[in-house]
Amino acid sequence: MTHRCPRPLNARVVLILAGLCAAVPVPAQTPAAGDQSIAARYRDAADRLIGAALADSTGYRRLGVMVDTFGNRLSGSASLERAIDWVLQEMRADGLEGVRGEPVMVPHWVRGRESAELIRPRPYALHLLGLGGSVGTPSGGITAPVLVVGSFDELTRRATEAKGKIVLFDFPFDTTASPFAAYGQAVQYRVRGPSAAAHVGAKACLIRSVASNSMQSPHTGVTRYDSTAARIPAAALAVEDAELLHRLQERGDTAVVRLAMEAQTLPDAPSRNVVAELRGSEQPDEVVVVGGHIDSWDVGQGAMDDGGGAFAAWQAVRLIKQLGLRPRRTVRVVLWTNEENGGRGNLAYRDRYAADLGRHVLAIESDKGVFAPVGFGVSGSDSALALARQIGGLLAGIKAGAVERETLGPEADVEPLVDRGVPGMGLKVDASRYFWYHHSAADTFDKIDAGDMARCVAALAVMAYVAADLPEPLPR
Amino acid sequence: MTHRCPRPLNARVVLILAGLCAAVPVPAQTPAAGDQSIAARYRDAADRLIGAALADSTGYRRLGVMVDTFGNRLSGSASLERAIDWVLQEMRADGLEGVRGEPVMVPHWVRGRESAELIRPRPYALHLLGLGGSVGTPSGGITAPVLVVGSFDELTRRATEAKGKIVLFDFPFDTTASPFAAYGQAVQYRVRGPSAAAHVGAKACLIRSVASNSMQSPHTGVTRYDSTAARIPAAALAVEDAELLHRLQERGDTAVVRLAMEAQTLPDAPSRNVVAELRGSEQPDEVVVVGGHIDSWDVGQGAMDDGGGAFAAWQAVRLIKQLGLRPRRTVRVVLWTNEENGGRGNLAYRDRYAADLGRHVLAIESDKGVFAPVGFGVSGSDSALALARQIGGLLAGIKAGAVERETLGPEADVEPLVDRGVPGMGLKVDASRYFWYHHSAADTFDKIDAGDMARCVAALAVMAYVAADLPEPLPR
Repeated sequence: MTHRCPRPLNARVVLILAGLCAAVPVPAQTPAAGDQSIAARYRDAADRLIGAALADSTGYRRLGVMVDTFGNRLSGSASLERAIDWVLQEMRADGLEGVRGEPVMVPHWVRGRESAELIRPRPYALHLLGLGGSVGTPSGGITAPVLVVGSFDELTRRATEAKGKIVLFDFPFDTTASPFAAYGQAVQYRVRGPSAAAHVGAKACLIRSVASNSMQSPHTGVTRYDSTAARIPAAALAVEDAELLHRLQERGDTAVVRLAMEAQTLPDAPSRNVVAELRGSEQPDEVVVVGGHIDSWDVGQGAMDDGGGAFAAWQAVRLIKQLGLRPRRTVRVVLWTNEENGGRGNLAYRDRYAADLGRHVLAIESDKGVFAPVGFGVSGSDSALALARQIGGLLAGIKAGAVERETLGPEADVEPLVDRGVPGMGLKVDASRYFWYHHSAADTFDKIDAGDMARCVAALAVMAYVAADLPEPLPR
Repeated sequence: MTHRCPRPLNARVVLILAGLCAAVPVPAQTPAAGDQSIAARYRDAADRLIGAALADSTGYRRLGVMVDTFGNRLSGSASLERAIDWVLQEMRADGLEGVRGEPVMVPHWVRGRESAELIRPRPYALHLLGLGGSVGTPSGGITAPVLVVGSFDELTRRATEAKGKIVLFDFPFDTTASPFAAYGQAVQYRVRGPSAAAHVGAKACLIRSVASNSMQSPHTGVTRYDSTAARIPAAALAVEDAELLHRLQERGDTAVVRLAMEAQTLPDAPSRNVVAELRGSEQPDEVVVVGGHIDSWDVGQGAMDDGGGAFAAWQAVRLIKQLGLRPRRTVRVVLWTNEENGGRGNLAYRDRYAADLGRHVLAIESDKGVFAPVGFGVSGSDSALALARQIGGLLAGIKAGAVERETLGPEADVEPLVDRGVPGMGLKVDASRYFWYHHSAADTFDKIDAGDMARCVAALAVMAYVAADLPEPLPR
């Protein structure tokens, strides 16, 4: 007769029984047996969550109300704080527990008016967006010839030509690569380009928008000044306009541009991380975090980046509660503030909960858009990945079950937690259009598909619920 | 022994021999025999034209120079006339014959500054482009609540609500239909919407941009006032903004918008149709016209609509000449002016050559973008279609040989000729992205693929050359 451990009732019991079982020889548990175990234990709950997510469009509709009512939500803006007030009120109406705004001081950059005018060879208004964190120009603007380079290497080769010019980096987004890998390459010019240009004496820096499609739509995003270089004004041109200036140069025309930007950084402003919970029935101090970021850039509506991710996480927790599926551990929805230009929200969360991070079982963020979900990227141990894959099996029916090791690094808001040993996850989606809209005026509610968002909600709900209810915490 | 007619040497000889042949019974010439005849006679010339078109990017490069140097080219603008001067100069440099600008008086509409601001429920700058031909607003603008309707029918049902309002038509572009069929439906709101709104007492009219994709990019185009209605200001909103106003209304919010437009129509201005020829070796008075339009809207670069089509036609004729393939009839490249907002160029052409239209063998226009060509749409007799299909067979190698009856009507600039009995053709292309860029700031040179444009040149060159060289004119 082969001894079999009884099905565990809760984590404490498991530990006790595991000790007993260890006393007698038992066959090693195979991954297949583990699959069956999670599948058997959670199939019903997962199907209920998936069914509820597909049937209940509250999260989608609330996203529409928020972005249409408050608009975009840059750190330091009144619209961000009004949106946070409204979210807190709605979360309380949902009956979520511990609903609170946790204070965070955030950078307060304001764009002001801005323009870039081609003066020579003919007058033409370029399509631009200043980069977040950029300094402004003197009030009369900066008028200078343009030097277009295709890369940092080309700037180095042509360093002597750059002095006194406006340097334009025309580095294309590799549309043949995976979107986030291509972004990782091209975004270097947005982040480091201005200081590289300043180092060789440029008066201002333009970049080709970091975007995989363009309809004269400039894309902003943060830039970072190197402390050893002069801080020069920096802006993104629409892809079309960057290519125009490049063609003019290739034909031997000297383009002259007048760049005028009122951008400035004001003193830090108060904001809040939004937190709400469904407290665990057995280990309420052990926490699964699931969230997105509530702030956005100051263009478009921040519907995709990251209103959709934030509201999908919120809706996931709301549905777990509505179905009466209170897990053993606490599920905490966190809508971080200031992801876009400072990351102060995620740092504040890490610091506020520094003593509790050992009991943070998992931190999930959705920040790649709520397009059709495909699965999760895991930052953690091999055994955490193996277990997450078993949970992913519950999402195969909605084609959201692919769970892989995250190769591009954790999502920004969970990264400080991952650095402290918390297993991290990012929702992975069909991101083929993400960089069409990202950080542009076109990031608007119409880009969100209600069915795709519902599947994202389902994926987040199942992953968060099962991770919070498993007998054992996800291994570190 | 079966009597066979000898291979015809030229059209006159064919007529004589046909008369002789008719005297004795001969088997009816089958389409297959016709195919072989055209294939045999023109395979070599067609292959040389195709090879030259694919190897010579002069047309593409000239398009870049024109749109970058002169920009867009609205009727009445200095940039249109400067572009025409430059094209005439280049055509003379090509050694084309009879290079001339034929005077045409054109409408002179100017946009001026324009804005639409959402006042309630929150301040927000809408993305708009006034419609071509619109009147302006009073200098303080028009501030009024918005009534959004989805169709003319809905406006009729809600007519009593429209009085004193700004009416917005939010009629979507059917992205599941063929692009030009969908355009034909949606464009009714741009053309007729403002007068329909005026008839029920609206103060101004907005339309959802007629576009199959949007990144907050409004699309302009001509509107036409009904003589029985008040002329009210009219503008296109970006799709995103039209949907925003529609959502606000559906939630019971009343959107209030302030519309300010300086648009005005000045007295007619002088412009020119650009004409150049390769004179026929045998029947120079018989003419094959091939062209596009040189004017554009006043946004973007007018690279796709229709710089590309116009320059592909020009390059096609240039290559026929360069290869020494002088056809029996004259090939005349015509770059019509004022296609976009008046059609005065094509009417002037018709009237100037009224006495010669009986000797116009064929009129071809390329005005659907120089994307990957698929073939031609024919407006003419069944026998003209059958013969054109045989010529199309010469283009099978570049997948541009599909010749079909045109079901959507002739191209705008050849329509007046078709109305007088001239066989018409339009170059058909993969137009799946045409209405992404059409009449918007995103119609720029980067949207043109050099390889696709080269294949368009090849298709136009082969069709124009063979039609001009056939023993018989294309049957009417």
